[in-house]
Amino acid sequence: MVDEVLGVHHIAELCGCNADLLNDSEFISTSLRQAVEHANATLLEEVKYEFTPQGITAVCLLSESHISIHTWPEKGYAAVDIFTCGDHTMPEKACDYMVSALECKNPNITTLKRGI
Amino acid sequence: MVDEVLGVHHIAELCGCNADLLNDSEFISTSLRQAVEHANATLLEEVKYEFTPQGITAVCLLSESHISIHTWPEKGYAAVDIFTCGDHTMPEKACDYMVSALECKNPNITTLKRGI
Repeated sequence: MVDEVLGVHHIAELCGCNADLLNDSEFISTSLRQAVEHANATLLEEVKYEFTPQGITAVCLLSESHISIHTWPEKGYAAVDIFTCGDHTMPEKACDYMVSALECKNPNITTLKRGI
Repeated sequence: MVDEVLGVHHIAELCGCNADLLNDSEFISTSLRQAVEHANATLLEEVKYEFTPQGITAVCLLSESHISIHTWPEKGYAAVDIFTCGDHTMPEKACDYMVSALECKNPNITTLKRGI
């Protein structure tokens, strides 16, 4: 139970995604940056790593917290976290965008209030 | 409800922390790296940003997902996420370490199974 809400954290289990997209490094970067824009957030820095033989992990550090993705192409699954602070942000729009971008057929999204 | 667990995500609301430590950039970096070791995880890259007049945001990208921290020194609060995959990892040890390192008097930790 949070008394003072300082941020909102969308925890997205994206199942049934397009496996090729989940392993496309350029696509993942572009999608994350688009998600940042949809969230009306400010990108500070992006870090990314491509695993062998497959899978990508990436985080966008934001002025308003972070957006992360870890992909399992072989399972059509991505774990996406969209954690933003501030009344100006629209994390749910970023969430919707990621579901659509990854062609996710079975999203399961939990929203947590973060704070004190 | 997750049928196939691919990772474990500790969501730590750390209240009542030492405010000076929450604004000490070097300390935050060192602590995160120590947390990575406690988790028995592999660091890929660290990104960090120091806000003016206060507050630090940082993420350690791991082979096993990520550890992040966003601090509000003025509130003695840090939002910490420790998300790891693989049977070799010990995220709860990293969690305990962060609570201790930040001298947190009032931790509130939620553990989520991540996956399909």
